Amino acid sequence: MTEVTLHEPLDMHLHLRDGEMLRTVAPLSARYFSGALIMPNLVPPVTDAEGLRAYRRRILEAIGEERFEPYMTLFFKEEYDLDFLKPFASEITAVKLYPAGITTNSEGGVSGFEIERLRPALEAMSELGIPLCIHGETGGFVLDREREFVPIYEELAVAFPDLKIVMEHITDAESVAALDRHPNLYATITLHHLLITLDEVAGGMLQPHLFCKPIAKRPEDREALLKVALEAHPKVMFGSDSAPHPRHAKEAPGCAAGVFTAPIALPALAELFARHGKLENLQHFVSTNARRIYEIEPPAKKVRLVDRPMKVPEKYGEVVPMMAGEQIGWSVAEIIQE
Amino acid sequence: MTEVTLHEPLDMHLHLRDGEMLRTVAPLSARYFSGALIMPNLVPPVTDAEGLRAYRRRILEAIGEERFEPYMTLFFKEEYDLDFLKPFASEITAVKLYPAGITTNSEGGVSGFEIERLRPALEAMSELGIPLCIHGETGGFVLDREREFVPIYEELAVAFPDLKIVMEHITDAESVAALDRHPNLYATITLHHLLITLDEVAGGMLQPHLFCKPIAKRPEDREALLKVALEAHPKVMFGSDSAPHPRHAKEAPGCAAGVFTAPIALPALAELFARHGKLENLQHFVSTNARRIYEIEPPAKKVRLVDRPMKVPEKYGEVVPMMAGEQIGWSVAEIIQE
Repeated sequence: MTEVTLHEPLDMHLHLRDGEMLRTVAPLSARYFSGALIMPNLVPPVTDAEGLRAYRRRILEAIGEERFEPYMTLFFKEEYDLDFLKPFASEITAVKLYPAGITTNSEGGVSGFEIERLRPALEAMSELGIPLCIHGETGGFVLDREREFVPIYEELAVAFPDLKIVMEHITDAESVAALDRHPNLYATITLHHLLITLDEVAGGMLQPHLFCKPIAKRPEDREALLKVALEAHPKVMFGSDSAPHPRHAKEAPGCAAGVFTAPIALPALAELFARHGKLENLQHFVSTNARRIYEIEPPAKKVRLVDRPMKVPEKYGEVVPMMAGEQIGWSVAEIIQE
Repeated sequence: MTEVTLHEPLDMHLHLRDGEMLRTVAPLSARYFSGALIMPNLVPPVTDAEGLRAYRRRILEAIGEERFEPYMTLFFKEEYDLDFLKPFASEITAVKLYPAGITTNSEGGVSGFEIERLRPALEAMSELGIPLCIHGETGGFVLDREREFVPIYEELAVAFPDLKIVMEHITDAESVAALDRHPNLYATITLHHLLITLDEVAGGMLQPHLFCKPIAKRPEDREALLKVALEAHPKVMFGSDSAPHPRHAKEAPGCAAGVFTAPIALPALAELFARHGKLENLQHFVSTNARRIYEIEPPAKKVRLVDRPMKVPEKYGEVVPMMAGEQIGWSVAEIIQE
């Protein structure tokens, strides 16, 4: 039997939603992870200290006794400045920027990337040491949106050299290539973009549970993602982008975007890294890199995984996970909180 | 008011299915078209004289009194030879070749394109003057399947210079380019591939009713298709590939491939050609080219279309059409059978 013990696993891009959905999905992340970076695209979005604190409290209520740190984010607004951010800067792990209308609940996002318009907010964040996370897609043709956004990432990286900029859930070989051109560009990569391409979404029958934004791309894009994930490139972190939608919103015309992976992510990653002979790098991909990049100290938790198969449940509440009903070659054997 | 009168409109790629579905959809094509090339991918497929005649009879029963010619096709088998085809060659308008497993009910298709294996069948068809229609996709990555098939089209065109080969429902600029390189290569183009790209299928929410095979491609591919359709390139014909599935098979995980357009095709094409100032070419695209290429003489029918809006029904029986509930700027004003 092969095994690996992960220390303080982290999910650096997580959607927990709110209300009933929050209560369904938050415990599933809290069980297996030491902490997660919580996305702020609620309705309305999290845009101030009060909203951020209240959402954090609701998350902590939802997870009960689990030892789990919700690292909170604010929904980026151009109006943010030093006076606004400074009083609660220690509570903000990152600010998340959405181009307007680009994904679920992003209507209030940014509609242009003129540097001077963004300068007050981004200089305040630089000064306060708050990283900027970006959903980097333009409004262009679906397969080109991320590639077209790379020059914007690069322009921001040059204009704000003291700002850590995280390219979220990258899917494209050109985003991977940009990582090494700028010292302050980082990236998260999801589980599903390491496993699937557009072929799995739309190459056979159409699979709504694999439909997400950014959409899965070409085989050569997945290869580029796999390469930096498996080698645990020091600027790359695991971020599941696990995004629950109730089944009826996925299995209908106008299917919502999002793949739900939080409860299967660690076993599936262990299987993937083991298959490629890279199990020794998984710790860096799911924790060490994020701790160094975000300068965070997550609560102690060890997750021991073994190559014993698990069957993925058909549903968690009303949410259908990725690989529902299928088998993963690895499973969680023990969780140690001490 | 602008108008156009189409003489003997033809749909040179149509799925009518069988049983209850046949009875639902066949009258919708028979009403507006003089004839259609009927695809043979039933379960089991149409592979002999008896099956072809029986299917033709079922179609004629389903359409009742309408004046409409179902141009029948056989499902390609390597075993076909001159002895087999000659006795009923006059009843076969074309033979349709499917790579095995490439789309709905194509499991019994061809699993390789070695010229010598195909030679007896294709030489018999050449001698009998029966065109070969091909669903040209490889088993590769979903966006590359048609492009990868172009060399196979070209190899067949060169090896069998007396065989008319129709590249069915082309979606890719490289297929369009191949048209002019070989005198015996022709193509059909659907309505939906003139209207949508992958953006409409998966760029916003996921739209199962626009999911089809081949999948809609990039904007520059659609531009290439539009160009040859609007100019009524003499080797290009309208073929709807209208493919009905009951609503429950489309609106579920594992959504079946196919867009249902038969009853809206002529108004939508009139609107499209009118918008581009090419209404005078529509007659060639929807009839004249096909009559010349297939050397057929369809029953007399004139369809007068005017720029008066119609609302597309939400459903025809259990089948949801393209643009369900939306408005098309043109409609059928009169059908003249004399």
